[in-house]
Amino acid sequence: MLNVNPERFLADLHRLRDFGAAGVGKGVVRPAFRAPDIAAREWLAERMQAAGLVPRFDPVGNLFGLAAGPSLLIGSHSDSQPEGGWLDGALGVIAGLEIARAAQEAGGPAISVVSFQDEEGRFGVTTGSAIWGGALALEVADQQADGQGITFASARAAMAHLAGDFVDPGQFTGFLEMHIEQGPWLFEAQEAVGVVSDIVGIRDMRMTFEGEQNHADTTPMHRRRDAFQALGRFNAMINDRFRNVVTPQTVWTIGHVRLHPDAHSIVPGLAEFSMQWRDGDRDRLRRMEEIIHSTAAQVAKEMEMTVTFGPMLGLEPVAMDARLQAALRESAEAEVPGRWRSMQSGALHDATNVARLMPAAMLFVPSINGISHAFGEDTDEADLRVLAGAAMRAA
Amino acid sequence: MLNVNPERFLADLHRLRDFGAAGVGKGVVRPAFRAPDIAAREWLAERMQAAGLVPRFDPVGNLFGLAAGPSLLIGSHSDSQPEGGWLDGALGVIAGLEIARAAQEAGGPAISVVSFQDEEGRFGVTTGSAIWGGALALEVADQQADGQGITFASARAAMAHLAGDFVDPGQFTGFLEMHIEQGPWLFEAQEAVGVVSDIVGIRDMRMTFEGEQNHADTTPMHRRRDAFQALGRFNAMINDRFRNVVTPQTVWTIGHVRLHPDAHSIVPGLAEFSMQWRDGDRDRLRRMEEIIHSTAAQVAKEMEMTVTFGPMLGLEPVAMDARLQAALRESAEAEVPGRWRSMQSGALHDATNVARLMPAAMLFVPSINGISHAFGEDTDEADLRVLAGAAMRAA
Repeated sequence: MLNVNPERFLADLHRLRDFGAAGVGKGVVRPAFRAPDIAAREWLAERMQAAGLVPRFDPVGNLFGLAAGPSLLIGSHSDSQPEGGWLDGALGVIAGLEIARAAQEAGGPAISVVSFQDEEGRFGVTTGSAIWGGALALEVADQQADGQGITFASARAAMAHLAGDFVDPGQFTGFLEMHIEQGPWLFEAQEAVGVVSDIVGIRDMRMTFEGEQNHADTTPMHRRRDAFQALGRFNAMINDRFRNVVTPQTVWTIGHVRLHPDAHSIVPGLAEFSMQWRDGDRDRLRRMEEIIHSTAAQVAKEMEMTVTFGPMLGLEPVAMDARLQAALRESAEAEVPGRWRSMQSGALHDATNVARLMPAAMLFVPSINGISHAFGEDTDEADLRVLAGAAMRAA
Repeated sequence: MLNVNPERFLADLHRLRDFGAAGVGKGVVRPAFRAPDIAAREWLAERMQAAGLVPRFDPVGNLFGLAAGPSLLIGSHSDSQPEGGWLDGALGVIAGLEIARAAQEAGGPAISVVSFQDEEGRFGVTTGSAIWGGALALEVADQQADGQGITFASARAAMAHLAGDFVDPGQFTGFLEMHIEQGPWLFEAQEAVGVVSDIVGIRDMRMTFEGEQNHADTTPMHRRRDAFQALGRFNAMINDRFRNVVTPQTVWTIGHVRLHPDAHSIVPGLAEFSMQWRDGDRDRLRRMEEIIHSTAAQVAKEMEMTVTFGPMLGLEPVAMDARLQAALRESAEAEVPGRWRSMQSGALHDATNVARLMPAAMLFVPSINGISHAFGEDTDEADLRVLAGAAMRAA
C-alpha cells in the first residue's frame, strides 16, 4: 500500500486555494489563463519537480508532471468557474500529485500527474483535454472567444513562454480522475465515494415557436397566436410524456427563453428557447428527441404556428474502462466498505476526452449539500486513500 | 346635414401620409416630436387656418384648431408608432378638419379640431392628452425618457417656438374621437362602424418566481426548484381558472419573460415576467387579480419558491358620455343602417383623458384584417358621414 500523507496533501490543497482565493467562504476565482490560474500552474509545476516528476506545459496550457517510462496518469483540472468551489477539479490534481509523490518515495509504481486547462469552458467545453484527446481541432479552438470576445488563441499566448510540445499519450497506461460529484446523490446517501460507470450523453438545441405579434389590448384571446403560450403548452406536454421514458437520473432543462418583442402590451410573436436533455443511454436520448419533435409539431399545428429547430449538439455517453473501474471498486470496498456506489456522471469531465486516448475511469467524492460549482464544497481524505489504492491495483 | 367633401377629406389624408411615409405599403414613420411629426403639425396648422380656424400649439405639442365661441371638439392624434399604420389616429384628425371646414362653410355649428401629441407613448401613455386632461403632471412628464434616453422636456423644446399657452377646455361642449378599431371585431363582422360604450380598464405588473439556480447537468429533477417551471405551471393554471370569470372581450397577456441566468446548462433560479389583463368591468378586473395572487401563492408553495409582485399599474374603465353615444348611434343608424354595433374599446385612447374634462365619445372604424398598428390599415369614407351626422346632432 502506498504511504500517502494526508497532511501534505491538505497543505498543498490549501496552498493551491490561495491562487484566486475569493475571500468569500471557500470559493476561488481562477478562470483559465487569468493571472491566478497561470500562477497556480507555475506553482504546481514546481511541486511536480519537487516530487521527482518532469513538469511539461503543452501549447494549450495543460500541465503534466511526467514520471519516467510508461506510467499511470492521474489528475483533473485546476482552473475554476468565474466563481468556483475550491475543491472541484483541484482536489483531483493535488490527489494525483500526492499519490505520484508517495509512489516516487516508495520506488514505484510510475505515476504521472496532469492539470488540464479550461475544463470549465471559458472558451468551449473541457477545452484543454478536448484538444489533447482529438475531439477539438486546435485551429477551431483558437477561433473560440470568451464572453468578452477574447479568443483562445490570444489567451494561450499568455503562456507561450512556458509551452513545450504536446505530450505523447502513448506513454500512459491509463487515466484516473477524482472529482467532486457536483450532484447530491453521494451526500444524500452519506456515502464516501462513487465509482463512475459512464458519463452521460447530452443533446442540446435551440427551438423557436413563431406565431403572430399583435397588440395585447385589442387582440381577442381566440385570435391570438401567442408564441409564449405555445412554449408553455409544449413544456407541460413534454414534462408529462417524458415520465414514461426517463429514469431518476435523466434530466432535461429549459434554461434560456427569449420572447420577441418582449413587451408587456404586445402578444409575443416569437419564443426562442433552449432544450437540453441528458441521459446515460443513447436509445433513451433518441426517444426523448422523438417526443420533443412530435410534441413541438403537434403544438405548432394546434396553435397555427411554425416551429424550427437549431443545430443539435450531440455528445454520446462514454463508458469508463472496465479494468480501471474494478480497481476503483476493490479499493473503495477495502477503504470505505459499504459506503460507496457505482454511479453515472451527469456532467462532462476531462475523462470524457481522455477516454479517446487510453483506458480511463473516475472517482466521485460527495458535494456538500449537493451545490455544484458554488462556494461551499468540502470533503475529507478517505477518498485520497481510495484513489491511491486503485492506482496501486491498476499500475 | 353638413356637406362634407370626401375628395377633399381623402386628399388631406393622403397629404398627411406624406409626412414620414415609410415607402413600405401604407405605413408611416412619424413618432412624436421627430421631424416628420413636427412638419406634419405645421402643415395641419396651415390647413386649420385655411379652414377658418385659429391654430394653437400648446406647450406639450398638442395642436388645436379653434372655432370662435363654445364649440364641439373633434380629433385624435397625428403621431404614429415607430412603424405605424397611415390611418390610425390621423383619420380622426383629418375627419375633424373636414367636418370643421364644412361647418364653417355652412355657417355652423362651431367645430374645433385637435391633434394630440404622443398618443403612441414615445414618452409615456397618451402623453399629450394625459397632461391636458390632468392625469399626468407636466413636471413628471418632463422627466420621462424614450428608449434612447431623450426626455420629454428636451423633446418638446423642439416645438417651443410654436408653443402658446394650454387651451382652456371650458370652451368645448364635448369631444368626439374617430379612430381605427385596432381589433378584429368590426372587420370580421363586416360592419362599417362601432360606437364605443366604454374604454376598458387595465391592470399591469411584473411578477417574479425565485427558486434555486443550479447546474442542469447534475441536479436531479426531484431536487430542482426551477423558476421557469413555476412560470409554466402558473400560466397553465390561470388560463384554466380565468375561464370561469372572463368574457370574450377580456384579454390577458404574458408578453415579457426574463430568466436568470438564462443559460442552456443552468436551472433558472429566477423568472421575472409581465402580467397584464384588461376588461371593461372593475369587479372582473378585481376577481382576476385575486386568481393571479392565489394561484401564484399556490405554485410558490407547492414548488418551494418565493413569488413577489411589482407595483401594479391600474387604470379604471372609462364610460363614454351617454348623450354623445346616442348622437353617434342615431347617425350610424341613419348612414349605415344595420352595419354598426355598440362595443368596448380594449385600447386606451386620447378620449380616456379628455373624458376627465368634458363629455366624450368615440367612433371606431374597421381595421382591415384586424392588424393593429401595422402597415396595411385601410377604410372608406362612410365613417366620415357618420361622424359628421353625430356632430350635427350633438352640437
